[in-house]
Amino acid sequence: MNDTMNTACTVKFLPHDREVVVEKGDTLIRAALQAGVHVNASCGGGGVCGKCRVRIEEGTVAGGVSERLDSAEVEQGDRLACLARVEGDVTVRIPVESSVDASVLNQQVPPRRTASITKVDFESLKEEGLFLAPVEKVYLEMTPPDAQNNMPDVTRLIGELQNKADFHKLELTIPFIRKLPVVLREDEWKATVTLVRPVREGGKTLITNVQPGDTTATNYAIALDIGTTTVYAQLIDLTTGSCLGEHGDFNGQISYGEDVITRIIYAEKGEGLQTLQRVVVATINKILGRIFKETGIDKDNISTITIAGNTTMTQLLLAINPSFLRRAPYVPAATLYPPFNAASIGIDLDEHALALVFPQVSSYVGGDIVAGIMGTGLYQNEELTLFLDIGTNAEIVIGNQDWLACTACSAGPAFEGGGIEFGMRAAPGAIEDFLIDPITWEPMIVTIGDKRPKGICGSGLLTIAAIMFEMGVINNSGKFNRDLDTDRIRKRNDIWEYVLVWAEETEIERDIVLNELDLENLIRAKGAIYSGCVTLLEEVGLPMEAIDRIILAGGFGSYIDLEKAITLGLLPEIDAERVAYIGNGSLLGARMSALTNRIRQDVVDVTRKMTNFELSETPSYMNNYVAAMFIPHTEIEQFPRVKERLEARTR
Amino acid sequence: MNDTMNTACTVKFLPHDREVVVEKGDTLIRAALQAGVHVNASCGGGGVCGKCRVRIEEGTVAGGVSERLDSAEVEQGDRLACLARVEGDVTVRIPVESSVDASVLNQQVPPRRTASITKVDFESLKEEGLFLAPVEKVYLEMTPPDAQNNMPDVTRLIGELQNKADFHKLELTIPFIRKLPVVLREDEWKATVTLVRPVREGGKTLITNVQPGDTTATNYAIALDIGTTTVYAQLIDLTTGSCLGEHGDFNGQISYGEDVITRIIYAEKGEGLQTLQRVVVATINKILGRIFKETGIDKDNISTITIAGNTTMTQLLLAINPSFLRRAPYVPAATLYPPFNAASIGIDLDEHALALVFPQVSSYVGGDIVAGIMGTGLYQNEELTLFLDIGTNAEIVIGNQDWLACTACSAGPAFEGGGIEFGMRAAPGAIEDFLIDPITWEPMIVTIGDKRPKGICGSGLLTIAAIMFEMGVINNSGKFNRDLDTDRIRKRNDIWEYVLVWAEETEIERDIVLNELDLENLIRAKGAIYSGCVTLLEEVGLPMEAIDRIILAGGFGSYIDLEKAITLGLLPEIDAERVAYIGNGSLLGARMSALTNRIRQDVVDVTRKMTNFELSETPSYMNNYVAAMFIPHTEIEQFPRVKERLEARTR
Repeated sequence: MNDTMNTACTVKFLPHDREVVVEKGDTLIRAALQAGVHVNASCGGGGVCGKCRVRIEEGTVAGGVSERLDSAEVEQGDRLACLARVEGDVTVRIPVESSVDASVLNQQVPPRRTASITKVDFESLKEEGLFLAPVEKVYLEMTPPDAQNNMPDVTRLIGELQNKADFHKLELTIPFIRKLPVVLREDEWKATVTLVRPVREGGKTLITNVQPGDTTATNYAIALDIGTTTVYAQLIDLTTGSCLGEHGDFNGQISYGEDVITRIIYAEKGEGLQTLQRVVVATINKILGRIFKETGIDKDNISTITIAGNTTMTQLLLAINPSFLRRAPYVPAATLYPPFNAASIGIDLDEHALALVFPQVSSYVGGDIVAGIMGTGLYQNEELTLFLDIGTNAEIVIGNQDWLACTACSAGPAFEGGGIEFGMRAAPGAIEDFLIDPITWEPMIVTIGDKRPKGICGSGLLTIAAIMFEMGVINNSGKFNRDLDTDRIRKRNDIWEYVLVWAEETEIERDIVLNELDLENLIRAKGAIYSGCVTLLEEVGLPMEAIDRIILAGGFGSYIDLEKAITLGLLPEIDAERVAYIGNGSLLGARMSALTNRIRQDVVDVTRKMTNFELSETPSYMNNYVAAMFIPHTEIEQFPRVKERLEARTR
Repeated sequence: MNDTMNTACTVKFLPHDREVVVEKGDTLIRAALQAGVHVNASCGGGGVCGKCRVRIEEGTVAGGVSERLDSAEVEQGDRLACLARVEGDVTVRIPVESSVDASVLNQQVPPRRTASITKVDFESLKEEGLFLAPVEKVYLEMTPPDAQNNMPDVTRLIGELQNKADFHKLELTIPFIRKLPVVLREDEWKATVTLVRPVREGGKTLITNVQPGDTTATNYAIALDIGTTTVYAQLIDLTTGSCLGEHGDFNGQISYGEDVITRIIYAEKGEGLQTLQRVVVATINKILGRIFKETGIDKDNISTITIAGNTTMTQLLLAINPSFLRRAPYVPAATLYPPFNAASIGIDLDEHALALVFPQVSSYVGGDIVAGIMGTGLYQNEELTLFLDIGTNAEIVIGNQDWLACTACSAGPAFEGGGIEFGMRAAPGAIEDFLIDPITWEPMIVTIGDKRPKGICGSGLLTIAAIMFEMGVINNSGKFNRDLDTDRIRKRNDIWEYVLVWAEETEIERDIVLNELDLENLIRAKGAIYSGCVTLLEEVGLPMEAIDRIILAGGFGSYIDLEKAITLGLLPEIDAERVAYIGNGSLLGARMSALTNRIRQDVVDVTRKMTNFELSETPSYMNNYVAAMFIPHTEIEQFPRVKERLEARTR
């Protein structure tokens, strides 16, 4: 038996009598969270506070023993839920003192549910015949020249290519001609040429490289995503479609500004643009260097680099003044960019490696989003799909094979932990999960990496707010219920707040709180996104219910607890199985376009089809926004499941 | 009256009773040469030897007085012919002592006759509608973007271009996009774009530059000829067709080798290729710098640079390994070169300036020759034309609108003064003209710049040898007549020679001689060229008489005394008016292609049509060569006029 196959364990919680299936090795506290079972826990899962004591009634767990438990307690089966890891099927009793009375056991929030992770099936691409990279290698054996036949090398090569296949409109470059004479004579007139297929049938085929001998088996591409925060690259084998290496790093431009606006401002000063261009190229080269080192692949075999980034990142990479992106009426330099030699902008690839850049739709719907649309194939489907990439800006695309509408809304950085008093990036110590005891109002805190809490990350914020709303701790305006009997809700500096973790249990030695300003920011953020979707749909005359499917992209999407997002009114009510998470959509698109030339053909039409709406210029947007400034929404009817749960709780 | 209009003067020589029309200001000695009248003169025309005394019988001359003449002589009208300049119609008597008796006065060689200089008529190009440069500027006034219409800058520009004219397949570059956002906003959305017309109708138009405001009136090109010895550039106004500035300089590569073979050998070592590339670019930049300084023209308005050079010069400019050009089977890297940014190879032009390079036919028939063919329009004419560019290599093209055959033959450097004991380049002090007294065998020497003699230039060599042959000083094998009564013919180091100038009358203080080895070299050179022509014609089944017209190109052609060239058997017998000299054909072609886009279209077909013959691989060549190793030829019947003169002399 393969052990790794047998990792599903059932955990049963008493007295709730609720079962959940988890992976072997998961902690009991995460199992409890998944089951919606509250266990007091304030230290984030580090075994420090000792509050999360539970008793193992059947089965076994690994670990969970701590100095907080004496040997008699351990003997009885007591463990700390944050330290105990599931080994097999197990039954766990939440002790009376850390539980709630039976009457509230049914007041449960929906179980945690994240979007299913969707991976592109490159095998089916192959079967559909779409797996035809923009570059191909062709091996040629030529007759050596002699006195009777001493035509130029290029003429000989082209003749052979035209013999071998129907390459009739061939273009080549000076650097290619420079290589040719020596390479052809290196292995007795046997050589491999790299051809860039035309975008459309009948177009010109560009010859970019020539290598001695038969190198058709080693043809690679780089897929590159340039994010404002992080840069990722993958090395793709163009023969098999596999990713042979991948690395990411922070975009070195971060030192010059956290977001696109501050970068643009920096670029406007003196040599700022050149500096930012150089810095992001340095990041790219660092990442590529690591990939090459790790895979041992020769740079000469990298034929293309496909690049996706938002409009600002793209313009900065290409050293195109981004000034007009941040000034009304927000005009980007270009939609489509021509292919160019990657080396010409400093990317450490051989002279022949061709850079293909994803087009931009507008100043705030950029190549990263277009890449996501291309990577998911959204533009080919009948189903009406909402594509959502949430960061500081949220980009929204709605559409199907017939039409595509898009917009960007300034969600603010709440989902990235910004503008929140104790907000932080999703890093160890960030509170990422939460429950609250409906009697004692004590929290259950789980942090990333099970470390002592340092702050709240975006998805944690979403969960905390949703749970608080469902449990009546905050109302639909994000105001705390002043009547609850707990010292955790308090007013400080005239602002109401809830203490998530007392100072002594934190890493930062200050009370970690969530206050009403944080909640206001969160509501503004989710309101902006939801009303953005509503407005786009209204512009095409459709209601929110028309959406068949949601695709979440970006780092944030993977952590979103879908039901919580619905509870808050960030996402419309939709079955979880109709929500897919694609991870880094930009990188996915870059990889897809490295592998299938059809993307280059389709992207021109898709970009043309993507109707961009500037929300600030769409009159209905402000009304929709105001209506969305409640949890979940002014019109609760848009969220029947949430409404039902609220009514159940009230009963 | 405009004085400059009235410059033709008639000079009558007595006792010969021969008249010649010269330009006002010409010296009497050059008038005499032109008339075929011998005047003893050995110092080259510097008034040193005093041998060229003549008497003015009617009219006046300026100058000609020297310490060699006493006042009584001057009073009588005596002057030194080398110093006296024609002021008006004049009658001159050659004194008895420096003349010959009447019986030989009729033994004259044909008067000096150079090819007529042909200039391309750019006005007629305009009228034919061919004056349509590869680049054009188009002025656009765009609607500024606003909130309702904030399409990308490129999209706006292209929209306006498509409104204005039928530009439908537009291509652009990253550097262009880089300029666009700022330039469009510099003069309120009024801007001028530079477009590179497609080579063929229906092809893509490339947008290379954008400038604020209306700059359509300032659109310039550089025409560049890269010769092995010299580099020339012209600045061409693409609106009027005029040449606004021109400069030339020695190709800096000369320090690394005088001819293409030594350059190729240098390029094969270490960083040799890179060095030679850098050095020729430095020469180009020096020349361009001078032109820009002189004309005050802004580099930003230079839209193209059209480049013509031989195959080696072209490959060195583009840093393409030239090694295989000098090794059998003599294979060039490419025929056609794609357009590229001139700045990318270091040429000091703005990033947008597009370089267009003339194609190469073979290793030894290069872009300079193709440029000459394009510039003369030879490929469009019905007449069968022989195009001849003589240097170390002579390139020969024969053909018309239906077919073109070409070859190169290694003429050796005799015509450039190389391989000749006292050979030198055509520079001041070089003997360029010559007559010989058929009684005394004393020479008449005229040098370039009327300086004391230093050596013999190529055209001087041709003239000396032809005169000597016609006067019976040498026989048809180039051997001196040992029987002549003159101390000027002597044997030294076992080699027969003729003393052209005694040491004391030279600048170099050595006897300047022409010896039989020099004559051998000359005969080999002319024989190679003539037999090259014969062989090409034989390959297409035509006799030499089929040639309707000769076009001479290259520095040498302008000085060739046509009748002398025919006498020697370098050129076939043809009326002088059917010989045209085009000067620097390479530069002419470069200029033409800067001005008329049709050249780019035609050149592809012309290059394809130009059938190259490797003489070494053409069996009949060696026979033809051997037959041509006599003056004028083994078959004197091929030169009936020469034959007749020889017979007249013998009688």
